[in-house]
Order: sequence, then C-alpha cells, then structure tokens
Amino acid sequence: MEDGFRLQDAKIAIVGLGLMGGSLALALKGKCAALYGIDSDHATIELALAKGIVDYAERDLSKLPEQADILILAIPVSGIIGFIQSLPSLLQTPCIVFDLGSTKCDILQAMSALPENFDPVGGHPICGKEKLGLENADASLYREAPFIVSALKRTTPRAKSAIQQIIAAIGANPIEMTAEDHDRILAKTSHLPFLLSSALALATPLECIPFTGPGFKSTSRLAGTPSQMTMGILQSNRENILDTILAFRNALDSIESALQRRDYAQLESILNRSRSAYQLLISSSSTQITNH
Amino acid sequence: MEDGFRLQDAKIAIVGLGLMGGSLALALKGKCAALYGIDSDHATIELALAKGIVDYAERDLSKLPEQADILILAIPVSGIIGFIQSLPSLLQTPCIVFDLGSTKCDILQAMSALPENFDPVGGHPICGKEKLGLENADASLYREAPFIVSALKRTTPRAKSAIQQIIAAIGANPIEMTAEDHDRILAKTSHLPFLLSSALALATPLECIPFTGPGFKSTSRLAGTPSQMTMGILQSNRENILDTILAFRNALDSIESALQRRDYAQLESILNRSRSAYQLLISSSSTQITNH
Repeated sequence: MEDGFRLQDAKIAIVGLGLMGGSLALALKGKCAALYGIDSDHATIELALAKGIVDYAERDLSKLPEQADILILAIPVSGIIGFIQSLPSLLQTPCIVFDLGSTKCDILQAMSALPENFDPVGGHPICGKEKLGLENADASLYREAPFIVSALKRTTPRAKSAIQQIIAAIGANPIEMTAEDHDRILAKTSHLPFLLSSALALATPLECIPFTGPGFKSTSRLAGTPSQMTMGILQSNRENILDTILAFRNALDSIESALQRRDYAQLESILNRSRSAYQLLISSSSTQITNH
Repeated sequence: MEDGFRLQDAKIAIVGLGLMGGSLALALKGKCAALYGIDSDHATIELALAKGIVDYAERDLSKLPEQADILILAIPVSGIIGFIQSLPSLLQTPCIVFDLGSTKCDILQAMSALPENFDPVGGHPICGKEKLGLENADASLYREAPFIVSALKRTTPRAKSAIQQIIAAIGANPIEMTAEDHDRILAKTSHLPFLLSSALALATPLECIPFTGPGFKSTSRLAGTPSQMTMGILQSNRENILDTILAFRNALDSIESALQRRDYAQLESILNRSRSAYQLLISSSSTQITNH
C-alpha cells in the first residue's frame, strides 16, 4: 500500500548520538535509505561523520531534516519532553516521532499534544552499558534486549509497523505495554536499583576504598550514572519510585529484624526466598521473552 | 635459618576445594613441595585429582595430613569455627593454620584457643566471582586482589613469613589489619551490599521478570549467593552489620526525603555526592594498594 512504511526506503533522523542513539545508528546502518544524526556535541558529530555512523550530521538541534520519515529521540528524559514541546516550531512536514526514554507517562502526555503532522509512539529499550557516549556505541547493544513499545490512542498502524520493523532490524524483542504499566514496573527494576546503589555509595566511608571487591562494585555500579541521565527519570516517575522505596524498606526491615532478634532460622528462610526470587527475576534471558 | 619457612619446600593442605580453595591450589601449583586437598564432596575430589589440581586428595575432613606444614581453611565461615575447635583432636603435629574466612574476630578468637603445636594466623582475600565451585576455579583469581592478613598476638614470624610468601606467590596484595577493623569495614563493603541485593530481590514482584536489564542484574547479583556462604558471616558480624544498615537507611532517607519534597536541587546534589563517592570507592584498582 502506498502509505505503508518500508524500512529500506525510510530516512531516519536520530536526535542524540550517545550510547543509545549511536548504537541504534550502527544497528540500522545499511537497512534504511538514510541516517541523519543530530547532536549538540561537536566531538560527537565529528566522530559520527568520521566513522560513517550516520550519512548526515547536524549540531543544531533546531535544524531537523524535513525529508525524515521518522524522528527518533535518543536523549535523556529531562531533554525529551522539552524537545517534544518545541517540535511544532521545528518541523512542519509529516513525521513519525519515536523516543527511547526511560519513563513513558510524561513523554506520551507531551506527545499527545503534538499537531497532526506528527505520528507519535513511545518506546524504551531495556539495555545499556556502563560506559556511555558514542565512543562506546555497539551495533549489538539491542540484540535480544526487551524493547517496550507504548502506543498512544492516535498512533497509526503505519507508525506501529515502522517501530516493529526497526525493532526487528536491530534484533530486539518488542513488548507492547501501557505507559502506566511501564512506569510502575521500571520503577522497581531500574529506578529503585539506581537509588539503592546511590544510597550505598553515600553510606560508605572513604576509609573503605582499598576494600571494595567485586560484590561492592556490582551493587554500587549504578551510582556512577551521571545525574543528567537520572534526574528527569526521578522527577517524571516520582510517585512510583516513592512506592518502590517503601516496598524495599519493608524487605530490608524483615531482614534487619531477624538479624536483630538473632532469629537465624527466619533470616535464612528470608534469604532463601530472596535467592529464589533473584534466580527467577534474572532468568529472563531475553530469548525467553515472547513477542506479544 | 633452620626454622624459616620456604614456600618451595612447604607441604600445603587446603581444606575446602571450592572456588577459593581450588583457585588457591591452582595458583600455588609448582611453587610448593606438595598440595593436599580435603573436601567432603566426592565429585570435587574426583575433579581435583583428574585435573591434577592437588597432589593428594581426601574426602574425610578428619583425616588431615600429618606432614603438612600449613593448613589453609577455605570453607565458609559457618564451618571454619567448628573446624578450628575440632583441630586439636585431628592433628597433633606442628602446623601453621591459616584461613580465608569472610569475618575475622570470631575466627581469631577460636584460633587463640588452639594448642601450642598450631601457629594460627587469619586471612581474607577480597576477590571471588559469581560462579562458585572447583569447576570455576581460576589460577588468576587472586591476582592484584587485596589480601587482608590479621595476625594474633601469638602468631610467629615464621607463620607471618609463610603467609607473605603465599600471598606473593599468588599475586595478591597483602594488607595487615586488626580483626576488629576488618569486620567493621567488611560489613560496609561486603555484608551490607549482600543484604541490599537480597532485599531488592525480595521487594521485586515476579511480574517484573521480563524487564530486568543489566542495571537490575548488577544491583541484585549478590542475592544469588547461597545461604551456607552467608549465614555464618551474618551471625559472626551481626553488630557491625546492624550498624551499617542504619547508616544505609540514613542515606536512603535523605534521597527519599528530597524526592518526597520535590527538592530536585537537593536530590541532584545528593546524587552527585554519591557519584563522586562511588568513583573514589571503586578507584582502588588493586595496583594502587600499597603493601603495608
């Protein structure tokens, strides 16, 4: 059909060429008609062009390519919402708008106010790695990763098809989900772990520096995430995160109470339950995720 | 001198051929006169002999080799103390006794009651990996790792020299420390992270299974530790651990309070402090640890 979306004919503009946007560009290379990269960082743009990661690059975020069929927002949550609000003044041509942001309710709300030339749909790939930036981009980053898709009521079948084709092309596993479910669940699996790592680092005095082994490094790793990546998430998903802190506190209380009372049978039973839960929770090697 | 300890002439018995004991045997292979392995698990003994990891192996933990110059206890804390208490009935020959246990106060207290034929000294290497057991043993596990040595008043220069030679031979970095300092600091860098991971896994409902990405896996990883590895530590270091839970709770409270009050400037300032602390805390690539 004439208005169907064919990835191989599509011109794709990616706003933000960090780890996520850069990896997406690498994974899409050769599978679409053209790749545009937009990033305010000069060195990033130079690297993207030097390595041929995108076909065209632009530093001025207000200069969006009018020929783009789809605009993918790969910037932190704190930037996405403002960017969506400014979109109508930047682009008047028809365009699918897709984001990779870590929260969905606020972003979909901003998307819902876009004029009719835009065809918006929300997304969130559950992958990443410790080292950020285009220099760490990796064409296989999305492979086998769960990729959450949250459509709006107004999202057209064409935009849904575009997203499915992109997700298939980069080897990820699509999961359709409401923005509300997304934000509630990601508070538990992502935003809480970040805050726990941060509180752990905060609670650890520097006299401990020579004694941090692999366990400490693993548990505290997320505390290294730059705040520009996380502040938007925390503001945007505040209520769900406060709920998960309460649930965590109850779990920690039960452990502390058993230890306090020297009830080691109870403590061992709690820890065994926790270990079983952990094993189930991380069993989701993404090959087990069915596409639905 | 006649009674000096020379590693190349030493007969070393390792009690417990799991990840730690097995890796130690692999790292010491060819650097001492003989390696004895003692482990109650039949398959472990078979593997150790089949792979030539030790020269002699024994399943009966009560049959300790009388010719051993040094006995290294590489079993969980829960087993070490009872083993030390039964040592006088198992061995009457002179022997250095060294342990790799994760707490030190209780173990050194048990060691201090040993008869005069034993020359005890406490140890704790800060390394390990997720997959336990002899099948995951690795000759390079100890390389560049901090290796805490806690001597008793009665520990002889000969035993101290033996431990230094062993630590040097396996490529670790020795750090001398009192048992009290060890237990206070390890509560923060090791025992608390384990409990946080456990509480996180406990607080995460199973509906989250498809959505646990690399961040969740990293933060919750220690929750997978079998309870026979951890129960002895928790009992043995209860007071220090309860103190660290309080310190952690204060840190989490400060984050929660800023989020609750929507004081995002304060929240970002806390998270930036946490990130700086994290970067310092994990900066201890062990090459930076001076031997003292």
